[in-house]
Amino acid sequence: MKAAIITIGDELLIGQVVDTNSAWLAEKLTELGFTITTIVTIPDEATAIKAAISSLIDKNGFIITTGGLGPTSDDITKQTLTDLYGGELVLHEESLRNIEHLFSKRGIPVTETNKKQALVPSSCLPLVNRYGTAPGMLFETKDHILVTLPGVPFEMKGIFNDELLPFLNKRLQHQKLSRVTINTFGIPESFLSDKLADFEKELKANDVKIAYLPSPSGIRIRLTSKSKDKLTFFAEELQKRLGEHVFGLNDDTLPKIVSERLRKEKKVLAVAESCTGGYLSHLITKIPGSSDIFNGGIVAYSNEIKHRVLGVPVSIMENHGAVSKETVNAMLDGVFKVYNSDIAVAISGIAGPTGATPGKPLGTTWIGVASKTKRVVKLYTFGNLREINIQRASYTALFEVLKLL
Amino acid sequence: MKAAIITIGDELLIGQVVDTNSAWLAEKLTELGFTITTIVTIPDEATAIKAAISSLIDKNGFIITTGGLGPTSDDITKQTLTDLYGGELVLHEESLRNIEHLFSKRGIPVTETNKKQALVPSSCLPLVNRYGTAPGMLFETKDHILVTLPGVPFEMKGIFNDELLPFLNKRLQHQKLSRVTINTFGIPESFLSDKLADFEKELKANDVKIAYLPSPSGIRIRLTSKSKDKLTFFAEELQKRLGEHVFGLNDDTLPKIVSERLRKEKKVLAVAESCTGGYLSHLITKIPGSSDIFNGGIVAYSNEIKHRVLGVPVSIMENHGAVSKETVNAMLDGVFKVYNSDIAVAISGIAGPTGATPGKPLGTTWIGVASKTKRVVKLYTFGNLREINIQRASYTALFEVLKLL
Repeated sequence: MKAAIITIGDELLIGQVVDTNSAWLAEKLTELGFTITTIVTIPDEATAIKAAISSLIDKNGFIITTGGLGPTSDDITKQTLTDLYGGELVLHEESLRNIEHLFSKRGIPVTETNKKQALVPSSCLPLVNRYGTAPGMLFETKDHILVTLPGVPFEMKGIFNDELLPFLNKRLQHQKLSRVTINTFGIPESFLSDKLADFEKELKANDVKIAYLPSPSGIRIRLTSKSKDKLTFFAEELQKRLGEHVFGLNDDTLPKIVSERLRKEKKVLAVAESCTGGYLSHLITKIPGSSDIFNGGIVAYSNEIKHRVLGVPVSIMENHGAVSKETVNAMLDGVFKVYNSDIAVAISGIAGPTGATPGKPLGTTWIGVASKTKRVVKLYTFGNLREINIQRASYTALFEVLKLL
Repeated sequence: MKAAIITIGDELLIGQVVDTNSAWLAEKLTELGFTITTIVTIPDEATAIKAAISSLIDKNGFIITTGGLGPTSDDITKQTLTDLYGGELVLHEESLRNIEHLFSKRGIPVTETNKKQALVPSSCLPLVNRYGTAPGMLFETKDHILVTLPGVPFEMKGIFNDELLPFLNKRLQHQKLSRVTINTFGIPESFLSDKLADFEKELKANDVKIAYLPSPSGIRIRLTSKSKDKLTFFAEELQKRLGEHVFGLNDDTLPKIVSERLRKEKKVLAVAESCTGGYLSHLITKIPGSSDIFNGGIVAYSNEIKHRVLGVPVSIMENHGAVSKETVNAMLDGVFKVYNSDIAVAISGIAGPTGATPGKPLGTTWIGVASKTKRVVKLYTFGNLREINIQRASYTALFEVLKLL
């Protein structure tokens, strides 16, 4: 089925906010088998909303909008939809209760503006929002479905997954495209495409699409096909070719896989971070339930703290520098002493933009991983961009932990 | 002048790539005084490109497209434009020389496919691309201008700045828009819009536009006007009304402002994080030069570590729980002991999705900030989403540090 995405919001049209909702929705809908024909961004104005919807209705069986439902712009959008689909604004009890619940939890009174958010056109099927105050709405005519969701990403995603996805899965009869993503780490993209040149020819011959999705967390290789069997075959073939560089499939991420392996092996991790400044700990702890595989980390930014908290001998840092194999080794010892964990990670590097010294360019990073019996400490030279260096160092450490386990 | 942005590319319609070009162009064009009426994303297909352009031509005096100029999709776009604007494909010498130069630099021979990229419709003004192989093109009729640029962000931006900006600056007579963003923290959006209802009326009467941009890092309020004086006046008025909730302007962020204040007051910060798991440290350390205002943090995830590393008495955690005012107070003491910093932050909460107990719902979070002489420990109840809770707790802590300083 053909589908269109409409994002509503002046902030997008002045370039203040990058529209990430569209890409998220496009991916979800494509996976459900929709073909996205158009993504359009329009202002918070009744005429623009009407024009966009009516210009897309005849070419698309499914239209989804995000934004234009904040307490401030609410009225325009809902009135417009009521004009288009008929009915009148009525109170949706469940949404009102949800709003009252949200506010009572925060211990603040519900304002009239917020109460009004529980009003929805009688012509729609309300989609309850458990993450914020504005409910989503679903309108259905004999030839199309239109869904409106709020623009705040986590609310939009929450409603989509909780309310819309079950509805669509029930409705959609047509064949879905199958996809598998092979997630790799540690091979540069240029190497990959050379290494896989002939493989890509095979794919083409079998009408299997391949896409490389590079990021500091690794390169994801996505295969898409209408045939599940072909997909399985080529996915396995690809994993054979890339060997240990493949750490997972589909939604697997290094933090997730590392956490699962640690849990399986009943091992607990602790880390000492210098240049990554807490990002590695964050990657692990943002996963629910991390407390049973992670007992903590130390952000040892200054040499003083490396010495006082982790017990790194001052002499080592004086003789070899804070960014050195010797310091990272001592940091690993410190982690074991302080946290008494099964696995230790230590990172010390020059994230930039300043701090480079002769022989130690920006991006110079020592990463050590250790168990009680095994220890690997390696030198990496990343780039000049601070944030990217922080990310690459953290993901590299996770990959090394995985290889150690 | 009204303007529209068209981004061309199948990869955008399956959600494989987030479209950042549109936001960049929208901001540039808005600053030049354009009003963006529409941003639309369409596939690499002649019919779609023609349909999009012709549907936008009558409502917009300026249309800019990105993408659809890669060696593979080149032909479609250029042929489509030749059909629309007449003429025939002719060789653009400067672009050819540029392509040859690029390839010789890389030490590889120019392929026929790439040479073809130097062909442009005779009806256009070519815009030289010094960053890649595909030139931009500018078409002008008596009632509109259409510009096509490649989709690779740094090529698109390069051509825009080198070639298009001078052209537009010469052409544009009309006044430019000025903007100021007032960045707030700690007021819900609904409160803001109620609090500012009358203020918004004043703005409307003075043709000053207001936009609310909420996120876990606070709500940014953007004012836009053609009059710099009005903007200054209302921005100051707004800051008076919102008082201490305003932490900065324009590109200011809480981590940036807190870092600057600490640096100015020659104070050093250290943190103890439980539920935020390193995210607060990351927010501070991802800013270059943070080492002189931040000497580190401890991610004390387990009670054992809270006790062993931070010296939180086991009895306190047994009697009051790890998520309690008493524990956070003891964590603050621990931070001062371990890091000997001027300012200490301690956070302990239930990020979710599990861990709620009677009387302590998901999102329950104790946040403490302290100097050697002053201490504030407060209870917050955030939502049910782990990642959002981690973010809100971290930014709230930064805001409290700012108030403490």
